Amino acid sequence: MSDKKKNILITGGAGYIGIHCITSLVKSGYTPIIADNLYNATTGAIKAAEAIIGESIKFYNIDVLDKDALSTVFKENEIFAVIHMAALKAVGESCTIPLKYYHVNVSGTVILMEVMKEFNVKNMVMSSSATVYGTPQYLPIDEKHPIGGCTNPYGKTKLFMEEIMQDVYASDKDWNIIILRYFNPIGSHESGTIGEDPKGMPNNLAPFISQVAVGIRSELSVFGDDYDTPDGTGVRDYIHVLDLADGHSAAVQKLEQSPGLKVYNLGTGQGYSVLELVKAFEKATGKSIPYKICPRRAGDIAAGYADPKLAEQEMNWKAKRGIDEMCSDMWRWQSMNPKGYTS
Amino acid sequence: MSDKKKNILITGGAGYIGIHCITSLVKSGYTPIIADNLYNATTGAIKAAEAIIGESIKFYNIDVLDKDALSTVFKENEIFAVIHMAALKAVGESCTIPLKYYHVNVSGTVILMEVMKEFNVKNMVMSSSATVYGTPQYLPIDEKHPIGGCTNPYGKTKLFMEEIMQDVYASDKDWNIIILRYFNPIGSHESGTIGEDPKGMPNNLAPFISQVAVGIRSELSVFGDDYDTPDGTGVRDYIHVLDLADGHSAAVQKLEQSPGLKVYNLGTGQGYSVLELVKAFEKATGKSIPYKICPRRAGDIAAGYADPKLAEQEMNWKAKRGIDEMCSDMWRWQSMNPKGYTS
Repeated sequence: MSDKKKNILITGGAGYIGIHCITSLVKSGYTPIIADNLYNATTGAIKAAEAIIGESIKFYNIDVLDKDALSTVFKENEIFAVIHMAALKAVGESCTIPLKYYHVNVSGTVILMEVMKEFNVKNMVMSSSATVYGTPQYLPIDEKHPIGGCTNPYGKTKLFMEEIMQDVYASDKDWNIIILRYFNPIGSHESGTIGEDPKGMPNNLAPFISQVAVGIRSELSVFGDDYDTPDGTGVRDYIHVLDLADGHSAAVQKLEQSPGLKVYNLGTGQGYSVLELVKAFEKATGKSIPYKICPRRAGDIAAGYADPKLAEQEMNWKAKRGIDEMCSDMWRWQSMNPKGYTS
Repeated sequence: MSDKKKNILITGGAGYIGIHCITSLVKSGYTPIIADNLYNATTGAIKAAEAIIGESIKFYNIDVLDKDALSTVFKENEIFAVIHMAALKAVGESCTIPLKYYHVNVSGTVILMEVMKEFNVKNMVMSSSATVYGTPQYLPIDEKHPIGGCTNPYGKTKLFMEEIMQDVYASDKDWNIIILRYFNPIGSHESGTIGEDPKGMPNNLAPFISQVAVGIRSELSVFGDDYDTPDGTGVRDYIHVLDLADGHSAAVQKLEQSPGLKVYNLGTGQGYSVLELVKAFEKATGKSIPYKICPRRAGDIAAGYADPKLAEQEMNWKAKRGIDEMCSDMWRWQSMNPKGYTS
């Protein structure tokens, strides 16, 4: 490796996961460049990340669907790899406006890869999701678990994106593509200055809990308490967003070895139920989280957690942070920024 | 129904199947409008169709990926339904340039449906393919047969298109969508003035046979003679393109009843092997077709033929033309137009 730091383009880099990746990439010796249309993000996140890393971040306010704008980024910068995070991610919304999800997530990926091909940038890390496994056939879920059977358009877009990448790699072995299947990222950077800032009603459990704790919402809705799990509530593999971010840095380092196409779970391997997470949060923060039991949500599975061994074996990456740290870091962000970046 | 003829927009309407649909739609009392970028078609087909139907056809030389151009068509015409045929269709090529296939077929469908939604045109007939069934688990294949397991990007694009339509319909029950799963269309209009005019090496058996018969190619390549079929060569459900075209008219008529989303096989229910088709062609034309046995092609299945009952029950459509008529009509086109429309 030369001394010159390699540029890593992160589409959707101002979002919750992207902004944490920025901090991890800088630590790992890369220069991040953000492309984000700020649809579900703000420049506040970028400013906060710049404060953390102590340097400015090149930012393009563009849409991945805008091929010309995207080309400009590649013209103006020598890119080593792209971390493709730009996507819509709300499961419920995807059932209401599926065309928009297919457009942004699937067409966006195709356009990005066409531009990458044009500029001969064929190193890529892709944000996928454990949702591609559908209803788990066994636990823990390893990467050999069948994929498909997704019950919502969001999940299908991730599945389609994976399939497209498989086909592109099959057609041209010069590509190196690492598909990362995220389990359930929560928590925030330890500074408390960057974190999850969902617009409107949170779709995910963790920000919902945080918003109840900080008084934005009066109580938590727990969707289903009659699942076949120890306490009846859904079990998920929560992973600290900084661990997830480090997984991306590890993936970019792996790309330096020209590995071809690889798929890795990013999870801890440990499942927690909704009520266990609530209790962990209460313990970490001293706040009480009132909740009510609501009906199950369509498409939710009972339990899912990763077998994360492959990422350790092949990328030397392993989640280090436990549930208490996830909760206290999540709370630091929420209590310091009760209204998110806009406050 | 009013006396005013309803406009049916056919994307890819100048192609082999599209141009035959034009003649069928006119017979059924509709006014076809063609949108085609002439990527794999020529205006010669449109002129020939105009001669058959005795009236001019409104034609837009546009790309379905061009949202603005597509919008113009809807601004300028009151469209009752769209038959969406615009797609790339070469299996082998799809393995080489998958991004282009996903772009044209999948992104194209999303863009078209977005425009349709914008103009509140929610009646659609979609060209799908028996390839979505993957390797048949039983024969004949009915519409309940599982889909998926496609081994090539072309097949996956059709599968993704179907899935997107399912999701769009689930999100908005005002849509009426009829997905037609084609088996293997061959033959030509009885006039011999329109037909299949593939560019370069034909991907499909029938035009390959025709081109050998007319002397463009010296011999037919038969891919595999060791399949588990009566004579070892692959068995397919060949359907006369005019029967297929009539299936589209039947689908448009079905749309008048606001049926929601429906899926129908378009096949005859009768399978013929490669060698049986060769023999039928030789019998119908008196020409001899030399052939050589080549290795199997990756992804080809041994045998596939439709259970076409559902289309008969629900659309009152049934294939009427037999293998001899398919062959003689195919030959009439080829012998009258040895170099296709360009001659």
